[in-house]
Amino acid sequence: MDKWKKLMVHIGAYPAVLGKWLAVGGLIGGIGGIIGSVFHIGVNYATQVRLAHPWVLYLLPVLGVIIAGLYRVTKVEGKDTNAVIESVHFGKNVPVLLVPVIFVSTVLTHLGGGSAGREGAALQIGGGIGHTTGRLLHLGEKDLPLATLCGMSAVFSALFGTPLTAAVFAMEVISVGVFYYAGLIPCLTAALVGYLVSLMMKVPPTRFTVADPGLDAWTMVLVILLAIGCAVVSILFCRGLQETGRRAARLLPNPFIRAFVGGVLVIGLTLLVGTTDYNGAGMEVVSRAIGGEVGGWAWLLKLLFTAVTIGFGFKGGEVVPSFFVGACFGCVLGGFLGLPAGFGAAIGLVAVFCGAVNCPIASVFLSIELFGTGDLLYFAMACAISYLLSGYCGLYSSQTILYSKM
Amino acid sequence: MDKWKKLMVHIGAYPAVLGKWLAVGGLIGGIGGIIGSVFHIGVNYATQVRLAHPWVLYLLPVLGVIIAGLYRVTKVEGKDTNAVIESVHFGKNVPVLLVPVIFVSTVLTHLGGGSAGREGAALQIGGGIGHTTGRLLHLGEKDLPLATLCGMSAVFSALFGTPLTAAVFAMEVISVGVFYYAGLIPCLTAALVGYLVSLMMKVPPTRFTVADPGLDAWTMVLVILLAIGCAVVSILFCRGLQETGRRAARLLPNPFIRAFVGGVLVIGLTLLVGTTDYNGAGMEVVSRAIGGEVGGWAWLLKLLFTAVTIGFGFKGGEVVPSFFVGACFGCVLGGFLGLPAGFGAAIGLVAVFCGAVNCPIASVFLSIELFGTGDLLYFAMACAISYLLSGYCGLYSSQTILYSKM
Repeated sequence: MDKWKKLMVHIGAYPAVLGKWLAVGGLIGGIGGIIGSVFHIGVNYATQVRLAHPWVLYLLPVLGVIIAGLYRVTKVEGKDTNAVIESVHFGKNVPVLLVPVIFVSTVLTHLGGGSAGREGAALQIGGGIGHTTGRLLHLGEKDLPLATLCGMSAVFSALFGTPLTAAVFAMEVISVGVFYYAGLIPCLTAALVGYLVSLMMKVPPTRFTVADPGLDAWTMVLVILLAIGCAVVSILFCRGLQETGRRAARLLPNPFIRAFVGGVLVIGLTLLVGTTDYNGAGMEVVSRAIGGEVGGWAWLLKLLFTAVTIGFGFKGGEVVPSFFVGACFGCVLGGFLGLPAGFGAAIGLVAVFCGAVNCPIASVFLSIELFGTGDLLYFAMACAISYLLSGYCGLYSSQTILYSKM
Repeated sequence: MDKWKKLMVHIGAYPAVLGKWLAVGGLIGGIGGIIGSVFHIGVNYATQVRLAHPWVLYLLPVLGVIIAGLYRVTKVEGKDTNAVIESVHFGKNVPVLLVPVIFVSTVLTHLGGGSAGREGAALQIGGGIGHTTGRLLHLGEKDLPLATLCGMSAVFSALFGTPLTAAVFAMEVISVGVFYYAGLIPCLTAALVGYLVSLMMKVPPTRFTVADPGLDAWTMVLVILLAIGCAVVSILFCRGLQETGRRAARLLPNPFIRAFVGGVLVIGLTLLVGTTDYNGAGMEVVSRAIGGEVGGWAWLLKLLFTAVTIGFGFKGGEVVPSFFVGACFGCVLGGFLGLPAGFGAAIGLVAVFCGAVNCPIASVFLSIELFGTGDLLYFAMACAISYLLSGYCGLYSSQTILYSKM
């Protein structure tokens, strides 16, 4: 009798877990979807204002000081995406004040034309929402990290309209070489609900159209060569951002002065290149690259702008800049190798992202959700190569390495 | 100076690994692709003969005895897909004789109308090829398991025309909850080359067309309900096959008599149901189900036929039968719930496969490669649910459980 009872409890545990995470994932997904959509609208609005009034660029140094002040006042200085990753690793708290602070700081960064993305912010906002909701629901120490992952998935999904990528990214980013399988139902549910909410709030999903070159061995060889280049670029990207941040902090230990100087540098760079292509997120340049129309050193300039912006204390994320750098680099090198330039840009976008975040499966899903599936095998091979060759370089220093890539 | 030298060696290790696995993966992919294609042609030919001469069904008991004899003579009795999985775990040898024996036995099983697939055979053939090639190349104990995975990917890919699924499946099937990231380049290369070879050898890739119901919350609720049912069916499927095998071995310890009796039982069942729909792989019934045209208890009958065929000692694989069972079940339950029946069948196919093999990511890629990407989120959610709820049930007893699913 006792044996049967035990068996029933054991069998019953699975549906109970399913029910719990459909509910909790759905709840966090709903909250994350709403806040993520509002965040998207805020960043977009700031960008519109900047484009309509180009002089706001000159406010950037002051905005930098305000951002530094916000972090000082709320005592979340030094907290970034790594704080969220560490929360998943060690159950550390994600300070709930980080949510409004990174939200406002990112909007201000985009308003002033700093070169940054939205996704680092999305992970922090989402992680904060998930962790806080989990604590309010009195989840245990085994479930709390999953709640944090739920929030990351939900806000990422709402911002980019890529729910499967968002869910898989959250499961994959925490450790190199380990996939967080227990997050499947929680993350997927949160990402899905976040996505549906964002659609209801009229956030357009990010989509591109790229021509399909068809599968053949020679094109694959060219893609492999391009992916090797992308791996190198992803290393440059990560190292560039990290080194700039480290040197800036050493030269200018005061965060107010640092942010002010960073703002001045971005203004100077902008005047120097004579275009605002490298300010803000630059999604329209990504679109042009995937249309095959970007040449030259745009990728390196974006890398420089982003390194200065993020390194000197502005906020946002590194993912859209990595899209930008990858797409422009792929457009140029792909075209040079003889690939259709737009297709090269698409490969470059996904491969540099993969090398920077060390998430090959999420990157393959990203290629599917952004571009459709015509060239899945090219993207998969490019991701595999960029993942391997980027070595232990990555955007997030808290990402633990549990298994060797080789 | 020494420090620089060390750094260069460290940096150089990555391109060296890339080059090595592009070469070794390509080689194993080529061999696996050729043998896999010949195997596909052989099984197809056997099926044509059976369809043209229905009386060969009555040879099944004798064919069973021949198969038992082949295993006895070559001393590979008891070696199955688990032997390949254990080879990856512990570096054990995969006996090279297993390759021709499982090849011939599977063709004979299909000739006589036993209910079996091809993929278990594909994994054994591929694993044997990969392991043997790796040993001939004097690969070390760290690389030998990767060579085995390469072979599995290559032959799976050649047989089904689903390279990404094949590569991810090999990386995912070895342990529950762990993804074998080091296999990315090796497996993907082997799967890709295997696929290209199979195309050159005119093996048609498996593809289905299924209508896209569009993303909405209510349809997702129905998919979740269907996936819960699929998880239960996947448990029945695995347990049914394993229990039948265990009981048959206890009742009839002599493998010759067991296979003979199994053949007689399949003949009896075939005459009883009055159709040959459940003999062989049954891909045409899978197609009908995805067309929305299968009803009743076809799924349970296929489960029964397969349990008897495999359990009494015939050879082949469990994957195509799991497709059959899942598609027919999904067609019926999906239609009953109010989903388009063909779409329900597609969900059922992928979800039952996922529950049986515990490979959710490979299953999502399977849905992409078989059906395109219209309904990716439905398939992903169905896979996640079936993965969780199938618990520690699975087709392969050697698949270790390293992380809990919850």
